[in-house]
Amino acid sequence: MPKIILTGDRPTGPLHLGHYIGSLKNRVRLQNELDENLKPKYKSYILIADMQALTDNFQSPEIVSSNILNVALDYLAVGINPELSSIYIQSLIPEFSELTMYFLNLLTLNQVERNPTVKEEIKQKGFDDHIPMGFLIYPVSQAADILAFRADLVPVGADQIPMIEDTNMLARKFNQTYTSEVFTECKALVPENFSRLVGIDGKAKMSKSLGNAIYLKDTSDELWQKVRQMYTDPNHIQVQDPGQIEGNTCFIYLDAFCEDKQKIQELKDHYQRGGLGDMVVKKYLMEVLDAYLKPIREKRAIFAGDPAQVMKILATGTESARQVVRETMADAKKAMGINYELL
Amino acid sequence: MPKIILTGDRPTGPLHLGHYIGSLKNRVRLQNELDENLKPKYKSYILIADMQALTDNFQSPEIVSSNILNVALDYLAVGINPELSSIYIQSLIPEFSELTMYFLNLLTLNQVERNPTVKEEIKQKGFDDHIPMGFLIYPVSQAADILAFRADLVPVGADQIPMIEDTNMLARKFNQTYTSEVFTECKALVPENFSRLVGIDGKAKMSKSLGNAIYLKDTSDELWQKVRQMYTDPNHIQVQDPGQIEGNTCFIYLDAFCEDKQKIQELKDHYQRGGLGDMVVKKYLMEVLDAYLKPIREKRAIFAGDPAQVMKILATGTESARQVVRETMADAKKAMGINYELL
Repeated sequence: MPKIILTGDRPTGPLHLGHYIGSLKNRVRLQNELDENLKPKYKSYILIADMQALTDNFQSPEIVSSNILNVALDYLAVGINPELSSIYIQSLIPEFSELTMYFLNLLTLNQVERNPTVKEEIKQKGFDDHIPMGFLIYPVSQAADILAFRADLVPVGADQIPMIEDTNMLARKFNQTYTSEVFTECKALVPENFSRLVGIDGKAKMSKSLGNAIYLKDTSDELWQKVRQMYTDPNHIQVQDPGQIEGNTCFIYLDAFCEDKQKIQELKDHYQRGGLGDMVVKKYLMEVLDAYLKPIREKRAIFAGDPAQVMKILATGTESARQVVRETMADAKKAMGINYELL
Repeated sequence: MPKIILTGDRPTGPLHLGHYIGSLKNRVRLQNELDENLKPKYKSYILIADMQALTDNFQSPEIVSSNILNVALDYLAVGINPELSSIYIQSLIPEFSELTMYFLNLLTLNQVERNPTVKEEIKQKGFDDHIPMGFLIYPVSQAADILAFRADLVPVGADQIPMIEDTNMLARKFNQTYTSEVFTECKALVPENFSRLVGIDGKAKMSKSLGNAIYLKDTSDELWQKVRQMYTDPNHIQVQDPGQIEGNTCFIYLDAFCEDKQKIQELKDHYQRGGLGDMVVKKYLMEVLDAYLKPIREKRAIFAGDPAQVMKILATGTESARQVVRETMADAKKAMGINYELL
């Protein structure tokens, strides 16, 4: 039996290079890994988490609905194969809501309020005393998303390990309360040397809301506009001046996306010596990124030209995910003894 | 179009005389009311609220599951007619959970915590700092139960009017946020001269947990055991002593259940004068209550002898209720713009 992997994204914008490096690339790699019998080692369920996205976008649901297709196209463009991975839409599987309701009985308000990630986000979003209930409990709904598949592995950044621990705590709590083995604990799959890609401003991690993102769907022209304005060394004014590599976004991106490590080293040396202009580095980075993104962009365009096919892929993925979730929900109801047999 | 009435009960025990006088009798009356064209004036949806019952019985789900049939039998026994009223089980309609999740986005933690009924119940149940999340939000789930049917009327005691106001607030909040008219406000239907029936101990309202209840399913023998131990005037020791009527449970019950008002007056006068023993009053009350409960008990026995038929009634009622809830949910998703058309 292949191991179950659960991943997903909130559909609040098209996906960007940060998503690619931080998670999508890894998902495709895992999807395509074979065991010694040449069977897939993993079965992936990839969640488009529209309900979760609504918990802090409930006043602008169009942000969420308009990005479902974007996210699906990005998945297909980077190589998610719907024959191997199920892509599905959260709001089309009501059993997630059901499971969340039963899980909410097993947690106290104090426990929910103690979640460090949510605490931090509440501060960031400036909710103060106006914390939407849906937002407060989204980690419980996230636990339901994971446990509903009895997932083995959940690829996450190191900062999300507490979330996985809370999810496993809930699995144990349910199993203990109802003397059952309905839910299985999952493992966080944290990539080695994981670091978040900075945005083109070099300041913070790449993110749509900071306006510093390169999208997978960007055209060559859009890409060049962004590379041109990338943050480099602000003290590197004349071409002949020695320039700084550390914190120079161009070189960070070259390290992340360029295979030709020797060429990078030559450029770095030249830049530090002086005599290498930013524009030369940027033109080379543009070449590298464009070669990197071109096949993704082209594949995306093909799927974008046939939205009906994409919708069909989402329908099939959702149906297949729902089958699994339904079985789990039935097992959970049986464990609670509320599996009434009506005629 | 008949007006929609929403009522229901938590299945935590068989129903008792307090339920009958306080609500069931009224439900049957409304169910059978006809308009000038001899069509039913109302369509009733009657909720067996097992999920809500689980919010404070999650550690003993068998209390809930074992009482589904009891409550259904009680409904049918008192004259709820499944041809006119739909009896349905909450946990079999996952759309209630879905709707609750979307409503939770529209409320803040402060607003939920402010609910006076929940505050009081948290104190009573001694939850202190361990308030189960499911319990804290049950009024939101209750609002979903009501609004899902776009109910016109909700029969409640006067103490539950704030709950109806909160429900209507949520309806307005949803409609405003999503510029829609999906939900309609409901009216509380508070019976005139509503008062809760005291238990056989005369102390508090009749309730299973206080052990002072006469159940609709009690046999004649069980009924007599309870009438015999009813609280009367503790100072009425000798038959010839004058007795007190006020707070005398026997006379409270006679007022509530005996049609022969002249006979009651005679008994009261005699009791107050002295010379009328408690046992005489109790035997008469037994006659009255037994005549009252006998047809209910007999009808209940018939249905209890055919549980498969009762399950079929619940299945049909649940299916018919679910149709309505599904339509509302679809309208709500359309209003939020998350009604994706997959293939």
